[in-house]
Amino acid sequence: MKLKDLFLKTRSCRRYDESFHIGEETLESLIDLARLAASGGNRQPLKYLLYNAKEECEKIFPYLAWAGYFKEWQGPVKGERPSGYIIILGDKSVTDTFGVDHGIAAQSIMLGATEAGLGGCIIASIKRDELCEELKIPDRYEVLFVIALGKPVEKVIIDEIKDNDVKYWRDEQGNHHVPKRSLKDLILRL
Amino acid sequence: MKLKDLFLKTRSCRRYDESFHIGEETLESLIDLARLAASGGNRQPLKYLLYNAKEECEKIFPYLAWAGYFKEWQGPVKGERPSGYIIILGDKSVTDTFGVDHGIAAQSIMLGATEAGLGGCIIASIKRDELCEELKIPDRYEVLFVIALGKPVEKVIIDEIKDNDVKYWRDEQGNHHVPKRSLKDLILRL
Repeated sequence: MKLKDLFLKTRSCRRYDESFHIGEETLESLIDLARLAASGGNRQPLKYLLYNAKEECEKIFPYLAWAGYFKEWQGPVKGERPSGYIIILGDKSVTDTFGVDHGIAAQSIMLGATEAGLGGCIIASIKRDELCEELKIPDRYEVLFVIALGKPVEKVIIDEIKDNDVKYWRDEQGNHHVPKRSLKDLILRL
Repeated sequence: MKLKDLFLKTRSCRRYDESFHIGEETLESLIDLARLAASGGNRQPLKYLLYNAKEECEKIFPYLAWAGYFKEWQGPVKGERPSGYIIILGDKSVTDTFGVDHGIAAQSIMLGATEAGLGGCIIASIKRDELCEELKIPDRYEVLFVIALGKPVEKVIIDEIKDNDVKYWRDEQGNHHVPKRSLKDLILRL
C-alpha cells in the first residue's frame, strides 16, 4: 500500500467488533515496528505490555477516558470494545525523560495496526494509579499511553476544517468526522 | 513496500549527497503525511517551514548539533550536508502543550522520506534562539524539531544490543552502526 493511503486509513477508531480476536503475534509485530523507530539518543527507554484476552481487556477498559469532545458518551458499549491493548511504558531505570519517544512508537503501532487490518486509538487520558494497581505494574515504569486495538466497526471521515473548529463529531449514521487543517494552513511562508 | 521493510530502511542518516536537489513537492508530500496523523485532542498545533535551496540550507546548518555520541565529529562535511530541512514548529496561539504531536509528525515525515528515496535525521539539539533570529521565526512559534533531509551516502546497520550499550558507532568503512534492543527485551511479562 502506498504510504499516503495507509495514512488516510490510519484513523483514531473508538468502536470495534469485540468478538474479533487479535493474535499475540500480531501484537508483537506492532512492537517490532516501534522497536525499529528512532529514539532520543538511541536510549530506547520504552517497554510494552500486550493484552488480547477478553478478561484482561475487561480489566483495562474502566480506566480509560474516550473521546474528550463527546461529553455524553462513556466510550464504546459492550460488544464494541477493544479486543486488544498495548500499554506503552517508560522505563525509569533507563531515563526519566522520554521526550517524544512514545509519540514515535504510538504512530508506528497505529500504522502497523492499519496494515494488519485493525484500527486503534492512542489514549492519554488514563486513571494511571488505579490501572497500575489493577495490573500490578511495578513503580519502575511510567504509563505513557494505552493504545486500544480492534476490528473497526465505525467509519471515520476526514473533513476540511471550518472556522478553525477542531472538534470531531458524529453524524446521524454514526460516522465519525474529523476536521483536519489543510496543507496550506500548515506550511508557513516567512 | 511492506511496512516492516520501510521501517528497516528508515534510519537516522547524517551524511548525504549534498548535490542532490529535493523538490518542493516532495517536501510538501511529507507534510501531507504528518497532516493526516493523530494529534492530541485533534488540536493540530504544528506548523512547518520547508527549505530546499542551497543558501537556505547553509544558513540553517550551523545551528544544529549532530550525533551526540560522536564527540569529535562536527557533523557532515561540505558536500555531505543535507539538501533540505523541515522545521517543525509549535504554534503557541493554538496551545502551549504540544504533547508528543511532534514525535508523531517526525516519524511520519521520516517514513515518507524513505518512501521518497531520501534519508533524514530528527534533530532536537538546536541553537533555538539563534536559529529563530536567523530565519526570522516569529515569537508565536516554538521550534520543536529540525528534520534534516537528503540523499543518503552512508550505510546504517542495525546491530543487536550488547551489554546494554545504546551508543551508536562508526566502523572503519564509515558504516554507521545502531544497537537496537531485541523484541523480547521490550515486551514485559508481568
